[in-house]
Amino acid sequence: MSLIALATDFGDGLYVGEMKAVILCRAPRARVVDLFHSVSPQSVLEGAFLLSKSWGFFPEKTIFVAVIDPGVGSARRILAVRAMNRTFLAPDNGLLSFLPQTSIDEIRSVENKKYFLPDVSSTFHGRDIFSPVAAALSLGTSVSNLGPRAAGMVRLADLAPRRSGNRIEGKIVHIDRFGNAVTNLPASNSSPVVRIGGKTIRAVARTYAEAPAGRPVLVRSSFSTWEIAESRGSAAARLNLRVGQPLRQEFQNPDSAKPAEARA
Amino acid sequence: MSLIALATDFGDGLYVGEMKAVILCRAPRARVVDLFHSVSPQSVLEGAFLLSKSWGFFPEKTIFVAVIDPGVGSARRILAVRAMNRTFLAPDNGLLSFLPQTSIDEIRSVENKKYFLPDVSSTFHGRDIFSPVAAALSLGTSVSNLGPRAAGMVRLADLAPRRSGNRIEGKIVHIDRFGNAVTNLPASNSSPVVRIGGKTIRAVARTYAEAPAGRPVLVRSSFSTWEIAESRGSAAARLNLRVGQPLRQEFQNPDSAKPAEARA
Amino acid sequence: MSLIALATDFGDGLYVGEMKAVILCRAPRARVVDLFHSVSPQSVLEGAFLLSKSWGFFPEKTIFVAVIDPGVGSARRILAVRAMNRTFLAPDNGLLSFLPQTSIDEIRSVENKKYFLPDVSSTFHGRDIFSPVAAALSLGTSVSNLGPRAAGMVRLADLAPRRSGNRIEGKIVHIDRFGNAVTNLPASNSSPVVRIGGKTIRAVARTYAEAPAGRPVLVRSSFSTWEIAESRGSAAARLNLRVGQPLRQEFQNPDSAKPAEARA
Repeated sequence: MSLIALATDFGDGLYVGEMKAVILCRAPRARVVDLFHSVSPQSVLEGAFLLSKSWGFFPEKTIFVAVIDPGVGSARRILAVRAMNRTFLAPDNGLLSFLPQTSIDEIRSVENKKYFLPDVSSTFHGRDIFSPVAAALSLGTSVSNLGPRAAGMVRLADLAPRRSGNRIEGKIVHIDRFGNAVTNLPASNSSPVVRIGGKTIRAVARTYAEAPAGRPVLVRSSFSTWEIAESRGSAAARLNLRVGQPLRQEFQNPDSAKPAEARA
Repeated sequence: MSLIALATDFGDGLYVGEMKAVILCRAPRARVVDLFHSVSPQSVLEGAFLLSKSWGFFPEKTIFVAVIDPGVGSARRILAVRAMNRTFLAPDNGLLSFLPQTSIDEIRSVENKKYFLPDVSSTFHGRDIFSPVAAALSLGTSVSNLGPRAAGMVRLADLAPRRSGNRIEGKIVHIDRFGNAVTNLPASNSSPVVRIGGKTIRAVARTYAEAPAGRPVLVRSSFSTWEIAESRGSAAARLNLRVGQPLRQEFQNPDSAKPAEARA
Repeated sequence: MSLIALATDFGDGLYVGEMKAVILCRAPRARVVDLFHSVSPQSVLEGAFLLSKSWGFFPEKTIFVAVIDPGVGSARRILAVRAMNRTFLAPDNGLLSFLPQTSIDEIRSVENKKYFLPDVSSTFHGRDIFSPVAAALSLGTSVSNLGPRAAGMVRLADLAPRRSGNRIEGKIVHIDRFGNAVTNLPASNSSPVVRIGGKTIRAVARTYAEAPAGRPVLVRSSFSTWEIAESRGSAAARLNLRVGQPLRQEFQNPDSAKPAEARA
């Protein structure tokens, strides 16, 4: 019996409870785990980033049910993707952009109503389509039964940071409960210069405890990207950061190159 | 081993964790699922509505533990109700109003202290009474062992909308994380006119994606009632909506009938 | 297979989901239960209090994974403690202060990298150390394999209230979703006088329903301590209370002893 991992933007209401009810009705022995439900409402970017960094911690054969779906009920497809020895269900809106094309074994457009609830609403496919399909997969149904092959999928332009010359353009992709703002900039060099909203951040700390209080620093996040953090405070609140906000990392001494910008 | 579904207004604190601890202490193999914990604090109306719309997605024999209980520790009874091939535990405060009298096989007043924790607080019966009783039921204890038969139960006056002439009077019964305001008005006709707090809403959208941005529309909710929604925005914030707020649906042309009210 | 109970300040993001993924990867049949994740960020005091009052509801052999860890990645130790027929994993920062020295069978400093994830970040030991160690324990690994014996542990000075003469000095140790402010003052006598922030509270109610509306009263909490509550309102909002705030209980008539302070 495979593990089913739920990743949505439904928050803590009853929608997730209804999804579990449907799964357990059809697959009473299924193991269902909550991966996340609190990404910014409708933030496909944040969901894709978090999935990209967490799927690898789950066992092989895990079935991921990812529902961040502003287009629910519209013509957008629902995809079932086999990749990396796992199965991913998601709307075709970029949420699975992190899967490299070369890693994908099969993509199906989920259309076979045999696996859906009898009544499908136009506002909650998480309950009416994704959950019963996940239950069927956990019971051994093959992805190939779900619908016709799909050649590709929608991909986000901004999930991966973009390198141009001596800089990398990235985004804030997650803000956690502590106000730490996670970026998609790889934490690869030791003296980063990050510019966001007119501010420059150069201070680096190895741990939260080592950071000086009262000002933002860069910490290597648990996702191996740069994270803007503040010791015992909220960097997101201090700097007014939000998911999706652009930022960039520079690799040369920016003070000499662009003096007017180099202020904290 | 039956499924135990928890539905409370306890939010995300430790109270739910303590309930699960008690259940698993007494029924180590029980399956416990969170249905919801985030209804408006002490909103029996919202809890009753959400239960009414979600119990049917759960398997037969599910034991529902519903604890929205402003009267905890007072003389209010606790009920165990067998209905629709499921069992419902709840305070006798209207939370089970959605169960039609004709669907009810048995109501017991839960009084047999043999199934309670040894020390019962006056502030947390969810942990001290509901949880150990649910564990006992999941292990096969009959509802009839829990206490004497009860003839009836408290019923909410406003859970079902009220029809009068050419209008239906209803309420906002749930606001979700996206700011969608769910009503208890059945979404049965295709050109509704809904009036709430001096506003009139007539625009209908089949999906969130189809709705125009920046103004509220009516969408058929996943509960098959009218929902006031806004595409990529929060209808609840825009219109300052709250759970329990009255509203009405009119069936004739209201502009001719009541011109003074017909403004958006 | 032991139960694993998670108690963190990670809130509702993906960190808890990643912890569960790691546990289930290594111990696919483990039972994982959320005890709490919503204590005030980095509040070791609140976490220690809640653990102290809830561990006893869990079955023997439960493995508690307590991660409120402002010092993550620093030189602070991670402890594995056997006490009261249960096992507790926590950073050595006072989170396990509630365990009486005499109840402790064994303390180990968790250092054996064999049980860690291969890559250990400096910001998320909950995922990289605590979770795989808990999985190993649940599969039968002995605590003595985790690292060298530790003689003692950090203890909080303010977890237990302090008696001095005719008063007890305590703290607010938890605020729940309803705005009830739980203190660590034992609810042992029947006519308490509690002073907090210039206010005096004497009114006692047995249940929330019995309390008069619109003013704070003392209720015996489900933790058997005094709780400042307000019927159908939030005492925490009305009195601007926060976790960690000091307060005191007096045992003599305070009006005659200290008239200047005796105002509500």
